[in-house]
Order: sequence, then C-alpha cells, then structure tokens
Amino acid sequence: MALPNQIHFVYMADLVGNLLVAQSGGPTAVINASAAGVIQEAGKYPDLIEEIYGGLNGILGILNEELIDIQEEKRVVIEGLKHTPAAALGTCRYKVDFKKKPEQAAKDMDRLFQVLQAHNIRYFFYIGGNDSQDTAHKIHEQAVQRAYDLRVIGVPKTIDNDLPHTDHCPGYGSAIKYNATTVMEIAADAASMASDSGVCCLIEVMGRAAGWIAAGTVLAKRNPGDAPHIILLPEIPFNESAFLSRVQETLAANKFCIVVVGEGLRNAAGEEMAADKRTMDAFGHPALSGAAERVAEIVSTKLKAKTRTVKLGYAQRAAAHCASETDVLEATACGGAAVRAAIDGQSGFMVKIVRHQNSPYRWTTGFQELKEIANVERLVPRDWISADGFLPNEAFIEYARPLIDGELHLPIDSGLPKFVTLQKSPVEKKLPPRA
Amino acid sequence: MALPNQIHFVYMADLVGNLLVAQSGGPTAVINASAAGVIQEAGKYPDLIEEIYGGLNGILGILNEELIDIQEEKRVVIEGLKHTPAAALGTCRYKVDFKKKPEQAAKDMDRLFQVLQAHNIRYFFYIGGNDSQDTAHKIHEQAVQRAYDLRVIGVPKTIDNDLPHTDHCPGYGSAIKYNATTVMEIAADAASMASDSGVCCLIEVMGRAAGWIAAGTVLAKRNPGDAPHIILLPEIPFNESAFLSRVQETLAANKFCIVVVGEGLRNAAGEEMAADKRTMDAFGHPALSGAAERVAEIVSTKLKAKTRTVKLGYAQRAAAHCASETDVLEATACGGAAVRAAIDGQSGFMVKIVRHQNSPYRWTTGFQELKEIANVERLVPRDWISADGFLPNEAFIEYARPLIDGELHLPIDSGLPKFVTLQKSPVEKKLPPRA
Repeated sequence: MALPNQIHFVYMADLVGNLLVAQSGGPTAVINASAAGVIQEAGKYPDLIEEIYGGLNGILGILNEELIDIQEEKRVVIEGLKHTPAAALGTCRYKVDFKKKPEQAAKDMDRLFQVLQAHNIRYFFYIGGNDSQDTAHKIHEQAVQRAYDLRVIGVPKTIDNDLPHTDHCPGYGSAIKYNATTVMEIAADAASMASDSGVCCLIEVMGRAAGWIAAGTVLAKRNPGDAPHIILLPEIPFNESAFLSRVQETLAANKFCIVVVGEGLRNAAGEEMAADKRTMDAFGHPALSGAAERVAEIVSTKLKAKTRTVKLGYAQRAAAHCASETDVLEATACGGAAVRAAIDGQSGFMVKIVRHQNSPYRWTTGFQELKEIANVERLVPRDWISADGFLPNEAFIEYARPLIDGELHLPIDSGLPKFVTLQKSPVEKKLPPRA
Repeated sequence: MALPNQIHFVYMADLVGNLLVAQSGGPTAVINASAAGVIQEAGKYPDLIEEIYGGLNGILGILNEELIDIQEEKRVVIEGLKHTPAAALGTCRYKVDFKKKPEQAAKDMDRLFQVLQAHNIRYFFYIGGNDSQDTAHKIHEQAVQRAYDLRVIGVPKTIDNDLPHTDHCPGYGSAIKYNATTVMEIAADAASMASDSGVCCLIEVMGRAAGWIAAGTVLAKRNPGDAPHIILLPEIPFNESAFLSRVQETLAANKFCIVVVGEGLRNAAGEEMAADKRTMDAFGHPALSGAAERVAEIVSTKLKAKTRTVKLGYAQRAAAHCASETDVLEATACGGAAVRAAIDGQSGFMVKIVRHQNSPYRWTTGFQELKEIANVERLVPRDWISADGFLPNEAFIEYARPLIDGELHLPIDSGLPKFVTLQKSPVEKKLPPRA
C-alpha cells in the first residue's frame, strides 16, 4: 500500500500479536461503523493479527482488564454495527492526565502496559475525538519509551467536527443530516401555523466551542426565505440588539422565525449564555443546558413574541435512523485504513479524511501524526460565515453538502430500528485487579 | 356504499356544488395525507363536485375569503402531500366560541355562510382535533338552521390521540414511531456511556392532558431492562418519592435511566409541574415548557445524579422522515371516506377508525356524530397502565404496536427530504373584506 508522503515511513519487521480496539468520548451514529471497519479489515491478516479484542468502556475498561473476544461475535453482528448508533464497546471520558494528575497518570500507564503485555496486544486502535487522540498519542509515546512493540493508530470520531487536519470527522455528517432534516420539518410546522401572531422557534443543538453542528443546519435552507433564518454560533459573540432586529424582520416577513442555537453560544464577554455550573464532565467542562431557553427568554421579554424551544440533546448524536450513508462509508473506511497503516508498520498517526473534490464528491483517507492532533480544536473559519455572523455562507455550504448524502434504510422490526448488540464474551483476566 | 349502522341515513337529493377542505389546530406528519385523501377522492365525482377549493389557515382564512383553487395544483404535488409534514393549507387555532364570545361567534357564522354561499360551497371537510371537530359541528348545525344545503364531515387529526370514539387518531402513530425510535437511540447512547457515574436522561414529549404520546414510547422496550425505564403520564399524579426510588434502582442496575416525561405532568394537587404562565394559546390553555427540566432538577438535587434533558417539541409532530406508513394510509383513507359519506348525503359526522383485529392488524373507517366528539378528551385508561403508574402495560402495547408499522422512504434531494408546497392559486374574492 502506498502511503501519503507526509507519513514518516519507518520499516518495521512484521509484527505478530493481538489487536485491541476501543471507543472513547461521546458516541455518534457511526462510531460503531469505524469499529466494524477495524474488525473486518483485521480479519484479513490472520498471520499477523492473531486475536481481535475489544476493550470495554475505552481506556477505563482496559485499565480494568475488561477485554472481550471479538472472534466470538457473529459476522452479521459486526456488519450490523454499521447501522447501530452509540458505542457498542462502551465508552468513557476518563483522561490519563500527566499535567494535572502526574502520579495517577504514571500509574495508569504502567497498568495499561501490563494489560497490553499480558494479552500480547501489538495493535491498538482508539476511536475518539480530541481527548481520545491525546490519549492515543501518549500511549504511542509510552510504547516507544518502554520499547514495547505496539502500533497505535487513532480513528477520528466526533459529531463536533472539531479535530484539526482531517477535512471533517466521521459522525458529523450524520448529525447535521438529522439536524437539518429536523429543522426542515419544524419549519414546515411553524410555517403552517403562521396565521397566528407569529412564533419564534429556537432549536438548540450541540457544540460547546465549535459551531460546526449548528452551522450544518444551513443545508435545510434551499431558498433565501427558508429556515433556518438565524444560526447562533459559539464562534460569534451574541449581539442581542442585532439578533432581535433580525428576528423582528423575519417575523414581520414570515410570521415565523427559526433560530438554531449552538449550545456553547457566548456573550460579548465570552461567557457561555447558559452554562449550568451544577454539573461538570470528567474533563472539567461545564455541562451546558438551556442556551435556547435563555435566548427564548430574551425574545419573549423584549419582543413580546411567542417562543417555542426544542432541545435535541443526545438524540442528534445517536440518530442512526437518519444517518448519512457517506458518513457510514467514511467511518468504516477510517477503521480499515487504520488497520492497513498499522500492518504497514506505522504508529502514532490518526487517520484523516482528505477531500479531493466537492462535486462529484471524492475523498480518500490520509494520515496525520497524533502529536499534531491532540487538544487542538478547530472552529468554523470566520470567512465561512456571513459578515453579520448570522449564517454560514456558500463556502461552508459547499463543504458541508456532500457529507449528508445517502440514506441507510435500517433493518426494521415491528416498525422500529433493529440494532445489534455484542454478546461481549470476556477474555480471561491474567492480572490482579487494578490497584 | 354501505354505511355502518350507527349512521342516521338521511336520503338527500344529489347535491351539486363546490368543495372546501381546510386544516386546523396543531399540524402532524400526516394531516396533509388526509387533505390528499379528500382531494383525490373528490376528483372521482366531477358531476357533483365542480370545484375543489382549499381554505387557507383553517376557519380564520375562510372568514377572510382566502380560498385557493386545488385544481390548479399538479397531481404529483397532491400525491406528494402524503409525505409532506405540517399543514400545507395552513392552519389556525381560531375558535368560534358561542359560550365566551357569543356576539363575535354569531358574526363569524354569518360571515362564514356568506363565504360558503358566494362560492357555492356544498361540501365542507375540516381536518383537525377536538376544537376543530367542535367547529365542524357548529357549522353543520348552522347549515341546518339556515337551511343551507351543506354536507359537513370532520376528518380526525391529532398526535395527542385524545379524540373519543375513534380507535386512534391519524398523526398519533407517526408521532410515537418517531418518539420511540428516538428513545431507542438515546438509550443506546446513554448505555454506552454507562462506565461514567450514571446518567438520568429525561425526554419531554407532547401531551397536555392525555399521556398517549408519552405512553407510546413504551414500544421501544423490547426486553424488561430496555428503555424507557419510567414513563411519567399526565394521568398519574407525580409521586416524587416513588419516582426517585425507581430512578435510583434503575441507576444502580444499569448506570443509566431513561425517563419519558409527558409535558402535562401534574403533581398530587393536580397542578402542572411546569406550566409557563407567560404565554397562553388562543384556547386559554397555558403553553407548557420544561416539565422534563423540572423533574431533572428534582433528580439532580435529591439524588445528586447527573441528568440530561431532551425536548422534542415540534419535531415530534412534524417528523415525516420517520412517519408510519400505516398512519399515512389511514390518514389518506379518512379523507377519502369523508368525501364518500358526503356524496352519500351525510353531514354532521366525523370519520373514525374502527379496529377489527390486532394481529394481523385490520381496520376500516366508520362514522360518529360530531355532537358526540366535540370537546370530549379521551385519556389513557387506568387499566392500561401498570399498578405503580410508571409504565403502560401489555394491553396498551397491543393497542399501540400496529400503529407504527411501515416506513415511508421519502423522496430525497441532496440528502434531505423533498417536501412539496402548494402553489396556492387564489380564488377570486367575491365579498367585501371581513368587518
């Protein structure tokens, strides 16, 4: 296999051993497709990859030596992962944090390599977003330091689409396909009620720092008057008076106004409009709730207009029933490419998606060093957003449009999707419990 | 056509004139299918039905003489209505209220019959829920009183499923198919994060007085441990301590707990948990927001558990992309049956759905006098709910299961649904503007 130029090609002798794949961070509609891609590709190299293991609940389960034997799973179940949302192996938000908790991190790494060695793991694939790629990077570095022969490849995943270097992230296309579909449907509903005094409908979508998900709903807009009428991105500080004028103009013209609100929307002072300080996630980010409710309050108070809110929450990252076929294909391909790179002797890379052409859409997988990925967040570029900040422009639309192409047509049982579950046959533990 | 026994068959001479169809109340994914059913059936009787008009924005538009000529619409557009959500003719929540506003109501009726006469409307079909059937009933009565030859048939519509006498309402099946699908997907997501400290995810669904929509999500539960774990129905007063124990048990067993919250959930005193008194709709009902947020607050305060909320709002009544094929067929059939009844000389009836058998599911349309429908709300029967009040039982499941069968496979354009819009060619006005 010819690898792209940017890869430092290091010839390594054929490495024989076992494979471990795990999932991390917030699930998506297609993170399982990436796992299926890894597993199906790995099955092609029985001389090098002897056992295929899954690590339960990401790095946390691996530290607890919770491995399952993927060879015990039915082939149809592995294929079915391609239409099954969420993380079939389980996921976690556990961080091996050398900066804040150096002692724990050192202990974790010792334990991790005990587990890898005990099970002769030589191929490790970690499917996740920024924090997970950071973890993968550290494992790669540790393997080098410890002179433990291990090939570590990260597989990108996040509906947030905020990983650098990759054109986009698997999971993103499906999230915006579902969200844009929902915006179209809600807009049709609100439009048909427009004989009433007018309604401003605020739809809150995910995206803590980056507005990619909110921006993607612009694909619902096929004509200038179509919804969404305003998209509030976390990248653009909320300008209340400009926003209220735009809502008022839209209500005057249409008697309805559809506003998409990125959950991480900030005011001019850079404060989140609706940070809920009660709960923090394991990475210390505040859990957000209610940016749309907050903006709705402003609209109803200042404009005396009727408001309605929708908060899609977890639904948008799990909506396999409305997944993008392109996204599923790409997610699967990223898993496969990761295995081929490892077989070719690579380690310390993340698979990325390289776009060659918008229309017809053409892409390949590529690779980027993990050290260039970790903890870098990519935001929506300012020049992809209209001057007034209220809508992504044509450059964004050209970028996003191909990512939602194609439908899955899930298998259905009695009117509802038929998802698969892994039987999770445990691999016998060889170590004492984690201290 | 043989009509069911319960109809008072009154032979009327063949009535020649024009037809008017209008939509009213909150839209659904299939209210347009009923309009298509009326229009397509009406086209079969060119000797009796000369012109087919649509009334814009329900009774309100008709009072303003806003009629459109349906014959100017393309046949493919009428067929396309069957997969287009929301009210293509526009809708309203205007009530002709003889009790509270007798003078206005009398004035409205005079104006309405002027419009009907000016356009020689002899067939009137009103597609809507409780309030709309009440309006249809009054129009029928007024026609009799005024000796104006008019055949009025109501076509049922409401995701709330709270109309009496009909087995269920068109719109309901699609709403619960979408909601149950969403519950399954969110549950898969939450389950895969279960290595974390545990999360209680609260999904708010529509249903002001009746819990049919919330109850319908039980279809997502295929095994005893599956989500939803708790369904909070407006019919069952909220019992905080019993609820919190159940959440705690579920979190202990699964590390996640999915709770579906009907927006109209009430406490033991009968007060809505989250009534937002700021806004009232035209019928004087308070607009609800935040029952799930309110319950989430209780869970996070009392159990110190992580909570996440989802509020599907308008999305659940507009989700044509996840509509039930059975629902679309029934909605279309109800429109067709309404026309045939009117052609047969009937007036003052609502079409209803009569169930003959659960499995395989068999149904026909039937008829009920409008006077028996108006303003009666049907709730989920107590004996269809578990003793503890937290889940609908097998009797409910048998009832609901057939209603979500079949998928639509919408036409798609660039990855998003392709809905139709009416060109709305206006019928020339013949009257001075409404006073």
